[in-house]
Amino acid sequence: MHSTQHLIKIALEEDIGSGDITTDNLVDPDLAGKGVIIAKEPFILAGLDMAWQVFKHLDSKVVFRPAYIDGDTIDDGKTIANVEGKLHALLSGERTALNFLQRLSGIATYVRSYVDELANKRVRLVDTRKTTPGWRVLEKYAVRMGGAYNHRMGLYDGVLIKDNHNAACGGIKKAVDRIRNKVSHLVKIEVEVSTLGQVKDALNAGADVIMLDNMSIEQIKEATAFIDGRVVVEVSGNVTKSVLKSLADTGVDIISVGALTHSARCVDISMRIEAAD
Amino acid sequence: MHSTQHLIKIALEEDIGSGDITTDNLVDPDLAGKGVIIAKEPFILAGLDMAWQVFKHLDSKVVFRPAYIDGDTIDDGKTIANVEGKLHALLSGERTALNFLQRLSGIATYVRSYVDELANKRVRLVDTRKTTPGWRVLEKYAVRMGGAYNHRMGLYDGVLIKDNHNAACGGIKKAVDRIRNKVSHLVKIEVEVSTLGQVKDALNAGADVIMLDNMSIEQIKEATAFIDGRVVVEVSGNVTKSVLKSLADTGVDIISVGALTHSARCVDISMRIEAAD
Amino acid sequence: MHSTQHLIKIALEEDIGSGDITTDNLVDPDLAGKGVIIAKEPFILAGLDMAWQVFKHLDSKVVFRPAYIDGDTIDDGKTIANVEGKLHALLSGERTALNFLQRLSGIATYVRSYVDELANKRVRLVDTRKTTPGWRVLEKYAVRMGGAYNHRMGLYDGVLIKDNHNAACGGIKKAVDRIRNKVSHLVKIEVEVSTLGQVKDALNAGADVIMLDNMSIEQIKEATAFIDGRVVVEVSGNVTKSVLKSLADTGVDIISVGALTHSARCVDISMRIEAAD
Amino acid sequence: MHSTQHLIKIALEEDIGSGDITTDNLVDPDLAGKGVIIAKEPFILAGLDMAWQVFKHLDSKVVFRPAYIDGDTIDDGKTIANVEGKLHALLSGERTALNFLQRLSGIATYVRSYVDELANKRVRLVDTRKTTPGWRVLEKYAVRMGGAYNHRMGLYDGVLIKDNHNAACGGIKKAVDRIRNKVSHLVKIEVEVSTLGQVKDALNAGADVIMLDNMSIEQIKEATAFIDGRVVVEVSGNVTKSVLKSLADTGVDIISVGALTHSARCVDISMRIEAAD
Amino acid sequence: MHSTQHLIKIALEEDIGSGDITTDNLVDPDLAGKGVIIAKEPFILAGLDMAWQVFKHLDSKVVFRPAYIDGDTIDDGKTIANVEGKLHALLSGERTALNFLQRLSGIATYVRSYVDELANKRVRLVDTRKTTPGWRVLEKYAVRMGGAYNHRMGLYDGVLIKDNHNAACGGIKKAVDRIRNKVSHLVKIEVEVSTLGQVKDALNAGADVIMLDNMSIEQIKEATAFIDGRVVVEVSGNVTKSVLKSLADTGVDIISVGALTHSARCVDISMRIEAAD
Amino acid sequence: MHSTQHLIKIALEEDIGSGDITTDNLVDPDLAGKGVIIAKEPFILAGLDMAWQVFKHLDSKVVFRPAYIDGDTIDDGKTIANVEGKLHALLSGERTALNFLQRLSGIATYVRSYVDELANKRVRLVDTRKTTPGWRVLEKYAVRMGGAYNHRMGLYDGVLIKDNHNAACGGIKKAVDRIRNKVSHLVKIEVEVSTLGQVKDALNAGADVIMLDNMSIEQIKEATAFIDGRVVVEVSGNVTKSVLKSLADTGVDIISVGALTHSARCVDISMRIEAAD
Repeated sequence: MHSTQHLIKIALEEDIGSGDITTDNLVDPDLAGKGVIIAKEPFILAGLDMAWQVFKHLDSKVVFRPAYIDGDTIDDGKTIANVEGKLHALLSGERTALNFLQRLSGIATYVRSYVDELANKRVRLVDTRKTTPGWRVLEKYAVRMGGAYNHRMGLYDGVLIKDNHNAACGGIKKAVDRIRNKVSHLVKIEVEVSTLGQVKDALNAGADVIMLDNMSIEQIKEATAFIDGRVVVEVSGNVTKSVLKSLADTGVDIISVGALTHSARCVDISMRIEAAD
Repeated sequence: MHSTQHLIKIALEEDIGSGDITTDNLVDPDLAGKGVIIAKEPFILAGLDMAWQVFKHLDSKVVFRPAYIDGDTIDDGKTIANVEGKLHALLSGERTALNFLQRLSGIATYVRSYVDELANKRVRLVDTRKTTPGWRVLEKYAVRMGGAYNHRMGLYDGVLIKDNHNAACGGIKKAVDRIRNKVSHLVKIEVEVSTLGQVKDALNAGADVIMLDNMSIEQIKEATAFIDGRVVVEVSGNVTKSVLKSLADTGVDIISVGALTHSARCVDISMRIEAAD
Repeated sequence: MHSTQHLIKIALEEDIGSGDITTDNLVDPDLAGKGVIIAKEPFILAGLDMAWQVFKHLDSKVVFRPAYIDGDTIDDGKTIANVEGKLHALLSGERTALNFLQRLSGIATYVRSYVDELANKRVRLVDTRKTTPGWRVLEKYAVRMGGAYNHRMGLYDGVLIKDNHNAACGGIKKAVDRIRNKVSHLVKIEVEVSTLGQVKDALNAGADVIMLDNMSIEQIKEATAFIDGRVVVEVSGNVTKSVLKSLADTGVDIISVGALTHSARCVDISMRIEAAD
Repeated sequence: MHSTQHLIKIALEEDIGSGDITTDNLVDPDLAGKGVIIAKEPFILAGLDMAWQVFKHLDSKVVFRPAYIDGDTIDDGKTIANVEGKLHALLSGERTALNFLQRLSGIATYVRSYVDELANKRVRLVDTRKTTPGWRVLEKYAVRMGGAYNHRMGLYDGVLIKDNHNAACGGIKKAVDRIRNKVSHLVKIEVEVSTLGQVKDALNAGADVIMLDNMSIEQIKEATAFIDGRVVVEVSGNVTKSVLKSLADTGVDIISVGALTHSARCVDISMRIEAAD
Repeated sequence: MHSTQHLIKIALEEDIGSGDITTDNLVDPDLAGKGVIIAKEPFILAGLDMAWQVFKHLDSKVVFRPAYIDGDTIDDGKTIANVEGKLHALLSGERTALNFLQRLSGIATYVRSYVDELANKRVRLVDTRKTTPGWRVLEKYAVRMGGAYNHRMGLYDGVLIKDNHNAACGGIKKAVDRIRNKVSHLVKIEVEVSTLGQVKDALNAGADVIMLDNMSIEQIKEATAFIDGRVVVEVSGNVTKSVLKSLADTGVDIISVGALTHSARCVDISMRIEAAD
Repeated sequence: MHSTQHLIKIALEEDIGSGDITTDNLVDPDLAGKGVIIAKEPFILAGLDMAWQVFKHLDSKVVFRPAYIDGDTIDDGKTIANVEGKLHALLSGERTALNFLQRLSGIATYVRSYVDELANKRVRLVDTRKTTPGWRVLEKYAVRMGGAYNHRMGLYDGVLIKDNHNAACGGIKKAVDRIRNKVSHLVKIEVEVSTLGQVKDALNAGADVIMLDNMSIEQIKEATAFIDGRVVVEVSGNVTKSVLKSLADTGVDIISVGALTHSARCVDISMRIEAAD
């Protein structure tokens, strides 16, 4: 909550700075206004609360009436929300509010297209840490609105042991042992591997989750068969939409896809503003 | 400068938070390491300094040796930079550094494809305020690295009078007069119009720049012919790459394109890290 | 808006710090109080909202009833505003509220004396960047309340090319060309000159505004005649009140005066506080 | 220390914001430069360290060589300091550095003129809390450089009981008793009085310091005679330079003067900058 | 006030961070709840307002109804306060609210046991600067709730000259003279001494308060007799509860005890939360 | 890292504020000094880096030479570290540096006494969220230095389902199912229970960890026998040192003890400072 409030402040500061010189000089600060936020293409909605907060920062008494909730499918042309407040606040906040809404809905929409691809599959689609710096919490929220799941939030709330970590400790077994003895008993330990040999090492070391990194479909099948449900299996590494189903059919539990957050484009949303009667 | 430093802090805080529990527990804090940042596809580079700063925040003595400068075209597989410092800092900072680099290079690359489309045209391609909240200064920088130009930085450093402003003042003429009498003599006044009638009003009102918003190619030609070089002419409104050349040929001075910042995807860049010898 | 809120916080912190030990220990925190803010000399009012905000920070339910608006001429002895709220908040906030009001009204009053001197002259009187660090937005606001105009807000929203910039680029022409190709099409380019030769160079280079720096009345007349309305002309450099009219009569468009903000003294305003009945 | 660092950040942010668009676009960021800070009138110096810090913020390796120390008398035309660093930092920081130096030296100079008036008098001249919000620590420092003394820093480090406090407690005696029982044994208790009757009450109540507020010279003499050295005596209330000596001759210990900080004007200091050879 | 608000923010951030993943995922954000804060042992209450503020940060409309005020003696099993608001806010804020309440009440309770030991003694029991970093204002408040007094708040609001200071100045006399001439006339000067010789030096130097540091009961008696009421006398240095009365009987005015803040343990307080009917 | 830096800033600000008026006025800012940090009782060391950072904030060139590392057992009278830097920085920073060191070492020492009690037992001793607000990361670090383990860092990095959560979801099974479907696959799910019936429900629901809250030794034995190693078992609830061994012998995996952080007292550490030769 806190960090998103902070981002709204930064966003308004970078856009308004020392003042909205057009609106400040042309619009009576006490004039009432109303606005309508409208979809200009079909998409999955995410970010309503951020848009609301933006206007609230500029006019604490603004009334924001959403017609949908985050996660809803919006058709082209639909009214997403009505906003009433000071005309000045609507004009100065419009762009920033839309910038939040367009980006978060863009991610939710892009995620949904992956989720749809995996309809009826048992596998869990998750995001990665390839998010826009400063937007981690928001983008992971949009991923959930799109219907996928989150991987760890950051380096602080999940263990993922990579090659470098293993090398620094003298092997997978030593790394897992050492970290098991350090972290909370509520934290699962995931080990990244890229060969079947490493899969075996990770299993022996007592990993809770094994990440198969950049392996071929065949290798993944072999690894999954070998693991045979003993631990959770995640695949990762430049996963594209076209291979999603084949990956799901290998029997893995988790597919992580960086593109969910790093390749979505903003959707088109506009706002019509006018002075209140 | 300041605001980008601030964003780096936020980014590291959201990723590392109370600690990188994998690296903190497995890697000796004094171990030296080295890393190589490598292009995994061809792109236009932007954001080198941000990547550097990320590592510097984690290890003030890190050595960062870039092989290119921002704006350069990078081929797939090329080494972008070498980094030397504490292995711990490299591992904890890798993702955040790449997240900055991938996004900014992604924008520069996308912008360059528009710029190339306009090769040999006199028109100036500019961005809009449709940027990622918190990233205004950075994304506008990436636009310049891609070869395009910036529109105003925010609401504080340029006047753009829209319909609502005119309505609140009683017409274009009154709006322009009023604001001319308020803002600094260094600020140009731009008026957004959508009909030829408004073009005439804006000219009569003494606008310095006229923005033709969402007009057809034919209307734009007519408006440009009428204005006949007396003021700067900008076109705006859902401009796609396919119409760029036709727009340029109408004789307008400026084409503004929101997609430059809101539709770019991240490019693929990786980092190979190892303990120093 | 944001930056002024921030300054109020700093101001209350530096004055109250770990606590107003007199009031905290002697006044019941729930006691109601009322205060009257009174002019102790005639002046031009500026800063009402800052005074209000100070009290609001200490008692969110304070009622502030101003009898005037910023820009008004206040006679000695007049009541400027009535304040009702917690006696504790009134006592702890009094000094800080008055410190804002006295300084901003002091600037507005000083500016007005310059403005009056130029009554019926076409020239525009503007301020400079010689403001109190931390107070830029507020002092420029007070300048407007005094009846003068603002020059650029800072280094970010206007181009002013000085000798050093020209030297670094290889002359006025090269500097103007280079910067024209870099900054937004909404930004005007001003060039500072001190000789008639430089005036010609600046005109040839395509400057939008020419600043005549530290030139004699004779030189200014000559320069203005030569420019002949082709671009906006500003004079600058230790302008005193006594030469204002002569400067105005040279035909220049803009006179910038650092003294407006750096030489004003605070006006005398007091507050009478008592417990509410 | 901390609060002044903070003010420098705010000052640079308000002046430079999203960038010094003139210097950023015209001056090579790696170019070396040198600057000379020069007095344009005689004054008492204060604020050298602030000027230094401003440049340091923009170029951490800047070399600053002052020719004087704060408190020194500077003659017109003298070089105050030499600065060497990036030309870019010198150009972007010049105005902010001078704004600090001019204001603080302005206060020190104004204070010195009061101090000189009291040469050979035993009385101590002190400032008040009538300072520029955000500048308390700095302006009180400048007062010391001018040769006067500081009153309490804020509401947190000294007790000053005024009429409202007494009224809220049921009289001076009760107020002093109550607060003596609350505050640290290191804090002296000052009581503001305006009649001889109140002087007696304050003495009986055990005040450590008595402030005679807005009393006539005759009344002050009478009060001072009555107090007869038993406690410290301060006079306050619209003290002008012309009455300073007469006030000193009444035998009071302390004269507090709000004008020291609220009526000083900035002194004239300039900076000559050039590219290094 | 400000600094405690800041600490609440930090506390919630460190506990909730990117989200209370249990409550966020299991409890409807609109569900109403109520809570009862209950004493699990007898203690002296302190920190009610902090607990209230914690919940307010999470639900601005929370209703907090305390059954006691700070300083009250609470019996085991008693209800301290009722809280009504969003169930979500109660669950996420519970731990942080209790953490404030337990620690501050713990200090008040521990202090009270010292105060009781000194019942009917004239001496004033005071705290030291041995407080938890970040908690100075709060812990000193808890000390007052426990019935003791505060020493100076920090290094900024009281002078305490120690050996190092004397050594740096060339002796006690020189140190006191120098500082008397520098600090405000509202500040008392305390000198730390450890021998009778130094007591005499401090008296001669004009100290307002003398601190007898780590002296034996005998030495303290001798020093107090010598000082004979001329200045305030404080004893300090590893004072334990068992020697309190003997120290009080030496005739000293002030006993300062670091243990008041550095050796208190938290008291046991719990909160019962349920969904509102 | 970041949050601890922030706490150091707050700590220095609350202690030094507008200035260390004793040292500022008596000690030449350029004088060199040296200090020795000495144990005044035996203890387990924790917090060396915090002490170092405090001095670094006041003198960036300070040299800090520790004789031990955190976790070491220190005998009474031993030198812990030598510090060399500006005498001014040593004097102003001494108290804050020691306040960090005393509290963190106090916790480590107290924790070690519990750890020693459990020597040769298989059980893991962990802390709770009953930490000093603002000190979570630091106190959990001190717990590790004392030889115990950490429970979750906060509400963000571990799931602990309590009665209220179950009630809000309609039972343990529904709560576990719902949250499993929401949180990352790296997060384990712990359920708090207080009866054997709930133990069975939690097992059936698929909990990863079961917390036995406030149960008797007999009940704990019964529960542990029933669970029989299928999931991790934690006991919690007012655990005292005297029952530690009995609890360990019940066969539980984890014992969590709030007292580790909320009942430790500071240890006694002093610093001897002198001017350098």
